[in-house]
Amino acid sequence: MTDLKRIELKKLFDRSSDFIGNEVVVKGWVRSVRKSKKFSFIVLNDGSSQDLLQIVADADIENYEALSTMLTGTCVSITGKVVESQGKNQTIEMQAVTGEIIGAVDESYPLQKKGTSLEHLRDIAHLRVRTNLFGAVFRVRHALAMATHNFFNEKGFFYLNSPIITAVDGEGAGEMFNVSTLDKQNPAKNDKGEVDFTKDYFGKDVSLCVTGQLEGECHALGLGKVYTFGPTFRSENSNTKRHLAEFWMIEPEVAFADLDDVADLAADYIKYMIDYAFTNCRKELEFLYKMPFTDVDASHFETLAAVRDGEFKKITYTEAIDILNASGQKFEFPTNWGDELQTEHEKYLTDVHFKSPVTVTDYPKTCKAFYMKQNDDGKTVRAMDVLVPGIGELIGGSQREEDLDKLTKRMDEMGMEKEGYWWYLELRKFGSAPHSGFGLGFERAIMYITGMSNIRDVIAFPRTPGNCDF
Amino acid sequence: MTDLKRIELKKLFDRSSDFIGNEVVVKGWVRSVRKSKKFSFIVLNDGSSQDLLQIVADADIENYEALSTMLTGTCVSITGKVVESQGKNQTIEMQAVTGEIIGAVDESYPLQKKGTSLEHLRDIAHLRVRTNLFGAVFRVRHALAMATHNFFNEKGFFYLNSPIITAVDGEGAGEMFNVSTLDKQNPAKNDKGEVDFTKDYFGKDVSLCVTGQLEGECHALGLGKVYTFGPTFRSENSNTKRHLAEFWMIEPEVAFADLDDVADLAADYIKYMIDYAFTNCRKELEFLYKMPFTDVDASHFETLAAVRDGEFKKITYTEAIDILNASGQKFEFPTNWGDELQTEHEKYLTDVHFKSPVTVTDYPKTCKAFYMKQNDDGKTVRAMDVLVPGIGELIGGSQREEDLDKLTKRMDEMGMEKEGYWWYLELRKFGSAPHSGFGLGFERAIMYITGMSNIRDVIAFPRTPGNCDF
Repeated sequence: MTDLKRIELKKLFDRSSDFIGNEVVVKGWVRSVRKSKKFSFIVLNDGSSQDLLQIVADADIENYEALSTMLTGTCVSITGKVVESQGKNQTIEMQAVTGEIIGAVDESYPLQKKGTSLEHLRDIAHLRVRTNLFGAVFRVRHALAMATHNFFNEKGFFYLNSPIITAVDGEGAGEMFNVSTLDKQNPAKNDKGEVDFTKDYFGKDVSLCVTGQLEGECHALGLGKVYTFGPTFRSENSNTKRHLAEFWMIEPEVAFADLDDVADLAADYIKYMIDYAFTNCRKELEFLYKMPFTDVDASHFETLAAVRDGEFKKITYTEAIDILNASGQKFEFPTNWGDELQTEHEKYLTDVHFKSPVTVTDYPKTCKAFYMKQNDDGKTVRAMDVLVPGIGELIGGSQREEDLDKLTKRMDEMGMEKEGYWWYLELRKFGSAPHSGFGLGFERAIMYITGMSNIRDVIAFPRTPGNCDF
Repeated sequence: MTDLKRIELKKLFDRSSDFIGNEVVVKGWVRSVRKSKKFSFIVLNDGSSQDLLQIVADADIENYEALSTMLTGTCVSITGKVVESQGKNQTIEMQAVTGEIIGAVDESYPLQKKGTSLEHLRDIAHLRVRTNLFGAVFRVRHALAMATHNFFNEKGFFYLNSPIITAVDGEGAGEMFNVSTLDKQNPAKNDKGEVDFTKDYFGKDVSLCVTGQLEGECHALGLGKVYTFGPTFRSENSNTKRHLAEFWMIEPEVAFADLDDVADLAADYIKYMIDYAFTNCRKELEFLYKMPFTDVDASHFETLAAVRDGEFKKITYTEAIDILNASGQKFEFPTNWGDELQTEHEKYLTDVHFKSPVTVTDYPKTCKAFYMKQNDDGKTVRAMDVLVPGIGELIGGSQREEDLDKLTKRMDEMGMEKEGYWWYLELRKFGSAPHSGFGLGFERAIMYITGMSNIRDVIAFPRTPGNCDF
């Protein structure tokens, strides 16, 4: 029977009626074995889907002793006949004919049947993907990445791989990792005794990107509509459930678009992701929304469906401040005009006041980066943040300042060194055009749709202060 | 007329018959203006496609003087009537009604009509995307990225974002960039006077990844089939047409697959990319194959079609050495059994001997990385390189050593420090399975399909020794 082709569980369950009565081979990892005298139940998963295959092994099959005593985590190949299930939650099960252990485990295997904490699972991120929970999370992550590429491709955007190693600070906020090939213990020095970056690989001091936006603007002003989808880095020392040192961002940039255009684009994109996940990851979401690990329950389907089908609320920062001040709530941080909106404020707007995503626009220029288009009031910029319930800021965007004089003046006001930005400024000198864009934190979008409450649990190998294993 | 919706040129040309006789708005950048007394010809591109729209502006239209004297690179909005073209190479053209300059340029604009060298264009990578050549390249790049995601998604693979910052050397070759947040001039030191990495952001010495394979193996042994598509880094001091310090790789990893399975997968993937580019980028490829900048001419369509429709040749390393030694060619580098295959050898196999892509398998273990499955001969490993004409190595892959003892013995032989790899080794301890994968250098694939001859011209902002602008 070794020439029988292996069937993945996704295919087996998706087209179960095609297989009933047939003998097939399945390969995967044992979730559990329940042994009795006359037969055993083996539960198998192969990662292709959320489905678990129940396999009945009668005591008279070859190799029964080995198969019936397999430990959780054993890798196994089983040949058997697909039959309709007697149980109520399964459509099909398998009657084993023969089986073979591919890779054994011993008692030290850390993923035993009884629940393990998410904290502990982070320490074994190389294995946690074998659990039902993380299998679901990473299949949803994949689906949302596909949704992203499909969405932008269908709209005529071109994918840009913006550079990772960079000599400029795209946000002007200074929270960057240094990159170097100089000798770590004895770097080359100049006559003044300073590290000599002219001897470094790139001949200068370079860092990891915090954004691909500036390069996105270059390409948008040639190709019209582009988007990045790549890793970005922040070296701030944040140990929160919402921050990573290394995270993935999607940054569309659109020539001839104003802030309203990209606010609509952002809403369409979020709706598209929700719809794609509903269509492609129904079993995963059903599983996740049942889990105690997530912040949500089955009602999250309706919550997201309402977002998919509804209008996004849109208010200005000034209106947001008025709502907060009229709320009667006591906030830890001040809410005077000009103050940053803190997480508690954002949460009030989304979770309490509107009970839906909210797009806040036209922030004070002092709260935002140098490149945003300045409003005529001299105080605010054409910025937007899209805030969603439970997560806070999911998207930050703006119309970009396309006027060379206004932009350089703002950089001067902020005390920025303009030299490294010569190329960025030239975009405003040669055939400038209005353009706008935004950045979506991919992990936050995954948290929002899966209901997972810690950002470290929606990226395969999280990087946070003090954590760089695997 | 300002309420007329703007039409992108791609849509205008793809559905030209829908628009003939209608008045529309186009926005883009001027490629050229030819002025005469009674009328002018304006040629416009907006980046959405390879198409150039010829616009006829009669001297009696409003704003004629400004429009007819626009310099190359001016950003403009023109409203006009779509008419059938009189010229033979165009289906449609536009009769201008009114126009408005959005962003002017002056004489210092570096992209003038007459040809500029590729070297010079690299120095203005923020603008080169506005040329017909680089517009074509980056639209093809986008298409090949979409092809990649579609191909793997259709086959049931899950996209993995493997980590960029890492504490392990995935190839064991030591060509890594250091990443740190320690003070550059005065890093924290321990009592021995050494740099104290416990004070660094991650509490240890970390680098940029050279591969996502090791983490890909973790996820393949849980989800079954995964692929990465992300940036990877090599700090080797290579100034060649085929090397970048920062490049993008696609690395599928498949549980229960052997080398033959992933060799087939690699061939299918290359064929899929060719077919996708033919279907989605016909105009771009036609343009590129005509350009003097590319290594190819229109016959490249037939060359690639033959690859798409044919079988990939497959030989062992030992057979490759025999072919080279029987060739009568004089090579610069030796071709004794055990020697590395150099570019000249690879080129002989693909360009002269086979005149097609060739998959070479079963290399001497001394030529390859520690993780490859050891053959019973004790000398070779289950490695493969896919070599293609004009490019050389496009793909490198292998079956992975799934036996813990053999793997640790090999790491010891190679003098590797095993400590940081504890998690990688545990994959062989807990439910191990045969598995295989490969890495495709994305930029090399783009070179192969576009015919571009320098890798710096197929990535938006190339990073090479001494070059980290933009």
